[in-house]
Amino acid sequence: MATMDAPRACTGIALVGFDADDTLWRSQDYFDDAQAQYERILAGYVDLDDVGQRLYAYEERNIAFFGYGAKGMALSMVEAAVDITGASISAQDIGRIVGLAKALLRHPVELLDGVREAVAAVANEYPVVLITKGDLFHQEAKVRESGLARLFRRIEIVSEKDPATYARLLEEFGVPAQRFLMVGNSLRSDIVPVLELGGWGVHVPYHRTWQHEATATLDGGAERMRTVPDIGALAAAVRELDALAAA
Amino acid sequence: MATMDAPRACTGIALVGFDADDTLWRSQDYFDDAQAQYERILAGYVDLDDVGQRLYAYEERNIAFFGYGAKGMALSMVEAAVDITGASISAQDIGRIVGLAKALLRHPVELLDGVREAVAAVANEYPVVLITKGDLFHQEAKVRESGLARLFRRIEIVSEKDPATYARLLEEFGVPAQRFLMVGNSLRSDIVPVLELGGWGVHVPYHRTWQHEATATLDGGAERMRTVPDIGALAAAVRELDALAAA
Repeated sequence: MATMDAPRACTGIALVGFDADDTLWRSQDYFDDAQAQYERILAGYVDLDDVGQRLYAYEERNIAFFGYGAKGMALSMVEAAVDITGASISAQDIGRIVGLAKALLRHPVELLDGVREAVAAVANEYPVVLITKGDLFHQEAKVRESGLARLFRRIEIVSEKDPATYARLLEEFGVPAQRFLMVGNSLRSDIVPVLELGGWGVHVPYHRTWQHEATATLDGGAERMRTVPDIGALAAAVRELDALAAA
Repeated sequence: MATMDAPRACTGIALVGFDADDTLWRSQDYFDDAQAQYERILAGYVDLDDVGQRLYAYEERNIAFFGYGAKGMALSMVEAAVDITGASISAQDIGRIVGLAKALLRHPVELLDGVREAVAAVANEYPVVLITKGDLFHQEAKVRESGLARLFRRIEIVSEKDPATYARLLEEFGVPAQRFLMVGNSLRSDIVPVLELGGWGVHVPYHRTWQHEATATLDGGAERMRTVPDIGALAAAVRELDALAAA
């Protein structure tokens, strides 16, 4: 298999990984919109103010069946709609829910402000790879549409972003965790597991976070992480951590 | 990134790829069962003898939205059920259809007769990788459950098995197509695209083939392919093609 280009030095950061959804392009907003429309459909049947929480309980439980992504969300929406309405929902409205999923799978890929320049700046100094979780088919389509694919040495779509997954990828890449830095909006999926392996992280928060990703505990390694409120500050943060990694 | 072990010689087959569904384990049978149950549910609403063909038209059209796999099939089933029944299907029956999908995603992984021995025999002589398409989450679960994962150097789950995908993988593996042999039950996905790139193929037909996979035209390269009716004959077929590739 191809090897990553030899790093410029034998210490410091040798590879930078980027998350995709809500790090490079808008994603959660579209899921939130779909959920708001879903709640309006169900409001025709039940007078509840916690439909969103009820749906989330189905989604969370169904991750074990469906994994992440819009198709799993859609199936959870259909299942929850049947139960929440006491099986009174009409077939037309079920059809509208499936339609929400199809629209979600075709939403335009809208890069976040400054992303193209920020990724290009980092890619100019380090080999970069994209590591995203979710639906293989949907993620591939978004990467293609983003126009960023050629900046990345590898595109890795994984089913879960946990320490075991990062360890497997780093072994494939031939890069030790101590020389790997991950950039992303989710502490739970992008930062904590990489710090846990001994790697480095730059957290770029997004204004919306899916409830599932919002729960994360940083258990040490904070000195190997930076938070940048604006992705324009990314390249400088990577350089700063690189200097620490090289020290 | 790790490189495939150096092949034993500088000519001949350097890497053998295996398809998974209906090559290593039963899959189509479970989809067919789910479809038969679906048809029984719809028979409560409409008296049609072509429900299967109607559903297939939705599935085929929705591949562009959903890709392959059980979750996409389930969403197509729900969408088609609303339309085929003229929106008269009950929410309970929609719930049963979602249940069919959940059962499909948890079906037991049942290795086909002789598979474990056949893969082990080939893996004993060649580096082997698994290349399968479909739902990332579901395929990973099946690979884990199969007990075969440790035989494969790499597990590659892809969204489409076309010449471009095989070419990308072979570049990652550092193996030229002329030294790659693919084993699988689908002429369309496993054999034809690999022959097209100049590679080799062993076709192991399965008793059921999904309509989508059943259409394939072999446009040259037949001399680089063998068909074995029984996977017990696989190792010998691989050796025979290896000798031709080395010649």
